[in-house]
Amino acid sequence: MASTLDVGAKYDLITRRVQEVLGGDLIKAILAEGRLPKAYWGTAPTGRPHIGYFVPLTKIADFLRAGVEVKILLADVHAFLDNLKAPLELVAHRTKYYEFILRTVFTSLGIPTSKLIFVQGSDYQLTREYNLDNYRLCATVTEHDAKKAGAEVVKQVESPLISGLLYPGLQALDEQYLGVDFQFGGIDQRKIFTFAELYLPRLGYAKRAHLMNSMVPGLMGGKMSSSDPDSKIDFLDPPEAVKRKIKKAFCEEGNITENGLLAFIKAVLIPISQLRIERRKGETGVDSEEGQGAIGDQNPFVDDDAPEGTVFTIRREGKFGGPPSHYKDYQELEDDFSAKKVHPGDLKTAVNKAIDSLLAPIRKAFAESPEWQQIEKLAYPDPNAKPEPKKKKEKVYHPPPPGKGKNAQVTKTSTESSEPPPPISEDTQPGAAGEL
Amino acid sequence: MASTLDVGAKYDLITRRVQEVLGGDLIKAILAEGRLPKAYWGTAPTGRPHIGYFVPLTKIADFLRAGVEVKILLADVHAFLDNLKAPLELVAHRTKYYEFILRTVFTSLGIPTSKLIFVQGSDYQLTREYNLDNYRLCATVTEHDAKKAGAEVVKQVESPLISGLLYPGLQALDEQYLGVDFQFGGIDQRKIFTFAELYLPRLGYAKRAHLMNSMVPGLMGGKMSSSDPDSKIDFLDPPEAVKRKIKKAFCEEGNITENGLLAFIKAVLIPISQLRIERRKGETGVDSEEGQGAIGDQNPFVDDDAPEGTVFTIRREGKFGGPPSHYKDYQELEDDFSAKKVHPGDLKTAVNKAIDSLLAPIRKAFAESPEWQQIEKLAYPDPNAKPEPKKKKEKVYHPPPPGKGKNAQVTKTSTESSEPPPPISEDTQPGAAGEL
Repeated sequence: MASTLDVGAKYDLITRRVQEVLGGDLIKAILAEGRLPKAYWGTAPTGRPHIGYFVPLTKIADFLRAGVEVKILLADVHAFLDNLKAPLELVAHRTKYYEFILRTVFTSLGIPTSKLIFVQGSDYQLTREYNLDNYRLCATVTEHDAKKAGAEVVKQVESPLISGLLYPGLQALDEQYLGVDFQFGGIDQRKIFTFAELYLPRLGYAKRAHLMNSMVPGLMGGKMSSSDPDSKIDFLDPPEAVKRKIKKAFCEEGNITENGLLAFIKAVLIPISQLRIERRKGETGVDSEEGQGAIGDQNPFVDDDAPEGTVFTIRREGKFGGPPSHYKDYQELEDDFSAKKVHPGDLKTAVNKAIDSLLAPIRKAFAESPEWQQIEKLAYPDPNAKPEPKKKKEKVYHPPPPGKGKNAQVTKTSTESSEPPPPISEDTQPGAAGEL
Repeated sequence: MASTLDVGAKYDLITRRVQEVLGGDLIKAILAEGRLPKAYWGTAPTGRPHIGYFVPLTKIADFLRAGVEVKILLADVHAFLDNLKAPLELVAHRTKYYEFILRTVFTSLGIPTSKLIFVQGSDYQLTREYNLDNYRLCATVTEHDAKKAGAEVVKQVESPLISGLLYPGLQALDEQYLGVDFQFGGIDQRKIFTFAELYLPRLGYAKRAHLMNSMVPGLMGGKMSSSDPDSKIDFLDPPEAVKRKIKKAFCEEGNITENGLLAFIKAVLIPISQLRIERRKGETGVDSEEGQGAIGDQNPFVDDDAPEGTVFTIRREGKFGGPPSHYKDYQELEDDFSAKKVHPGDLKTAVNKAIDSLLAPIRKAFAESPEWQQIEKLAYPDPNAKPEPKKKKEKVYHPPPPGKGKNAQVTKTSTESSEPPPPISEDTQPGAAGEL
């Protein structure tokens, strides 16, 4: 399909809502030549992905709509190295499970996936060329620079492992070996990204652009317990579980700084609502048939009788009832919540309803795919079915998917650090515990 | 040929003259089963090898005579990473040059080479399996432990490179991937070796034994200048050059602590002299035909009329003339030198004569091999033939070959540190300067 967007519109779509762009001129130059840039975002297939993944995926949806070729790196080698407990075979199942989930998120939203490519780290990270480059980098980078680059994403412990020094370099090499023009991640990746900008040229490779999402607190907010199974909402959670978990989410009246629900509305629900409104108006990305393959209800999170321009509606119910509030942007909602004009209960109900509508098609796709169901069993076997279930550490690779329990993109005020590279993990969850 | 040595004799031959043996029981157990152990020693093919290499080669000769399968690792990947200046193609030529030299040293001495195997690091160090193990190790080893392990062989600089932390682990993995039972090196490798003993089992691999040579000061002794072309004796130096260089060697009357000539006599000349005496008596290693292929003069460094049991003779000449001194062991010679009963000039003459007899067959082999001559031109092209010859850093891999200018196995009192792993180099010499 011919592009319906001009260069400026494509650039705006690619970069909108991100907190920072480094090397935007590079992207502009590619677009100006009539080409489309290539991008990559990575995650380590470890624990079950939770709906915090909607945050980066919502941004990646913009890339795909703008015609960007997006490679999602499923960093299986990193997942294996995480704590050296999950054997490669288990990681292979999880890699497939992640691909099922992530692909389904895009298709359910009607995002074009013809330029979405899943790559496994082991496809190239263990080759002769990559490793020689890794050694070259290690003979170029000082311990000091590597430590500085990883300061925000590698957990700072008393006895750090060597691997913590390798990750910035490996992540830089990924840009070269994936052949991309820019890398996307959370703002906590900034030092890793500037490291890559500095060191790739020293190996004779091109400097890439970097797009960074702001940090988003976990959906469940407040104090989180990794041992609490209710601290995260799984993509496949049934409606009752979603309802129970959201009911437990920390959401204090008038408190807008520690509010995972508001953050989720801002980073995920309003962007998706806007996407659906735009599409109704025929404003698609470069693919004018965008949205035709979407699964399930594609209504924006807005009441039918809401005034033009509304992107989010909050209804008032029960004893605090009253007319619904319609918001034209996130700021209006935040202001109202800060002024205690929106009750936490009503906010939760609105978020619950929106999440239900996002998860319903994913649950449906899962229910209709015996292959996915089989992979799910292999990737996350029932710990109770084992004689001695062990705790399995969960780790997510660099571009930190935020979520309920474990924040991937956290605000600076959050008490939790962002998802660090594989070898350092804080989160545990029951799951398959294989041995090497 | 059936072995003429019993288990005890083999063990003694394998371990004689080394400063320390770790895991000797492992070697004994293999011998007791009627098997023969396998060993490895490594060097990085960088600058032209100098005659300090005779020190480790003299010990390796014992291994080969005892029937040990010896792998000499020509660490080309490390050489390449050394300073990232020598391109892989140049390193490939140097690797061949090293093999020519080292093999010729053994054949010229009549050492059996049927169990001598040359391995290039790039044969296995860039494979999927090796690199996965490297990553596993990096996710297991703390920075602290890696730094401690490399403290004596990695040059301690203000801004250390990451590579300095990798070398101990890579050297440990080499033991596994080369399939050896023990590794041989200088005593300065001790922390690297104990690191390997600790960490290989953590990856599920066997702990290996380790044999360590004591550190030997450089042949030229005293103050050494890396920019002085006369600070090292090359294997192919003509007799006049050898004579000139030995004349310049630091050798102070009565000074036995800073005396590279005495050290060379102890570590190389007396062992080779003894080997030749033993052989004359029919005392060979496991190969009873040992020595038949030797090239050139195979006389011990002893006068024909020396009394039985003499291993080294020093003649007195000129105005300090008198009857020659015959020594039954090194200690007698050292005592005499300390008591100023041996003049430095006579010591130099004796060493010069012995080295001439060792180098003559090597020069001859070179002169008779057009292939080797061609490799020599490619490996060390004439710097004057280039418009802008650059200084080429020289680096030798772990088992530190001692020599004139640059000590590989240095005494603790030496002002120079032992040869560190590849990326850190102190020595420069004119040579081919390729670019990546």
